[in-house]
Amino acid sequence: MQASKKVAHRVVFARHGESLWNKENRFTGWYDVGLTEKGIKEAKTAGELIRERGFQFDVAHTSVLKRAILTLNGILDTTDHHHIPVHKSYRLNERHYGGLQGLNKAETAAKHGDEQVLIWRRSFDIPPPSLEETDERHPSFDRKYSLVPKSALPSTESLKLTIDRVLPYWFDNICSHILEGKNVLVVAHGNSLRSMVKYLSGMSNEEILGYNIPTGIPFVYEFDEDLNVLNNYYLIDEEELKAKQEEVANQGKAK
Amino acid sequence: MQASKKVAHRVVFARHGESLWNKENRFTGWYDVGLTEKGIKEAKTAGELIRERGFQFDVAHTSVLKRAILTLNGILDTTDHHHIPVHKSYRLNERHYGGLQGLNKAETAAKHGDEQVLIWRRSFDIPPPSLEETDERHPSFDRKYSLVPKSALPSTESLKLTIDRVLPYWFDNICSHILEGKNVLVVAHGNSLRSMVKYLSGMSNEEILGYNIPTGIPFVYEFDEDLNVLNNYYLIDEEELKAKQEEVANQGKAK
Repeated sequence: MQASKKVAHRVVFARHGESLWNKENRFTGWYDVGLTEKGIKEAKTAGELIRERGFQFDVAHTSVLKRAILTLNGILDTTDHHHIPVHKSYRLNERHYGGLQGLNKAETAAKHGDEQVLIWRRSFDIPPPSLEETDERHPSFDRKYSLVPKSALPSTESLKLTIDRVLPYWFDNICSHILEGKNVLVVAHGNSLRSMVKYLSGMSNEEILGYNIPTGIPFVYEFDEDLNVLNNYYLIDEEELKAKQEEVANQGKAK
Repeated sequence: MQASKKVAHRVVFARHGESLWNKENRFTGWYDVGLTEKGIKEAKTAGELIRERGFQFDVAHTSVLKRAILTLNGILDTTDHHHIPVHKSYRLNERHYGGLQGLNKAETAAKHGDEQVLIWRRSFDIPPPSLEETDERHPSFDRKYSLVPKSALPSTESLKLTIDRVLPYWFDNICSHILEGKNVLVVAHGNSLRSMVKYLSGMSNEEILGYNIPTGIPFVYEFDEDLNVLNNYYLIDEEELKAKQEEVANQGKAK
């Protein structure tokens, strides 16, 4: 019989609160919108849940999009962690929605047809139409990405492509901090979090497509010293969690 | 006749807005207090002054104290720069006021006498009484400084000792970014800013003691390609500046 492994590391994850475009049900992706009042409150609530459990952090990782950064700032404020180093990377950005970015559900259906929208929505590896390289919405025109080679910047992404972008950051930037013994906080987006969750929980493509990460409810993965996952849990009880996940699922898929 | 040198680099500096203890006129130093409503507004104003002039930044430096970090966040918000890397260091902290930290003007005078207070206030190199190493206010008990060797942590500081702490960070961490061609924003404290200003403007010990940096008004140093200072100016006109400096001078010396 194998001895049960001891928890050596805990990582806390949180999804950003409601953004202005979540509210309007538009495909946001890499478009850089702020939080709504509700989103700011969700960040505070996330911070309170973390503080109540006494988590302490040595470092935080987030995307370069302000809805994640503002959520992180809200958590740092509530938990009194403003002093810790914060690492920001495009690799933790939301999935890039290509030509759908900026469209709401109705506009998308009108432009591409309900059937096509359903395919994109239910597909693991079929990306929406690419942005033209001359399109002013292309990330190569955004000063945020001036230090990222153009060939590494997406014009559109499936969930699969998002995972391919996110996981190198998990392995190289986040895991190295965990293995140094640091307590790590990660604040990111629906699909960049799904990328890590799929890997960490060994979910199939179908499982991750059906898995909704609620906003503002931090979740924890516990690891042994070799970074094998031992447990994972949300910082609220099962019943509340289900209600929150249904809320997210019913919001539609525009993220 | 020497050709006039061309401006190759500009660095924008700002002092944090009013903190809770500024308002109560207490010696704050390394004590980590938040901003008042006025302080939050000052950060926004600083951001607006910067935005109006069209400054863009690639990187920011600040202290590990939240009154500076929150001011920086306010500026990043107003100028739409949340995505840039932010470096936080104890070397940009306010002067450490030793045993005076937490006392207000009246308490300090009652404890140490008006004459002694005047000596500390007017002196360049006489530090206030040291904190005992067992004093719970000593920075070695603060998790913020867990990665700084105890022998590098101050128990008290004169302005001279503050300068000795700040300038290595200027040379090694800020100048390297400037020389890489990055546009740098520095948000810090009355005395950590004075440390850099004294060096950059070649002020005497007496000059810097008499020099008050207003809160919330960003200032700029312009450099040639060898980092020689060519110009420096505040982002408001002379008259407004004088009024702001007098306001700071009249607030008393508790910082």
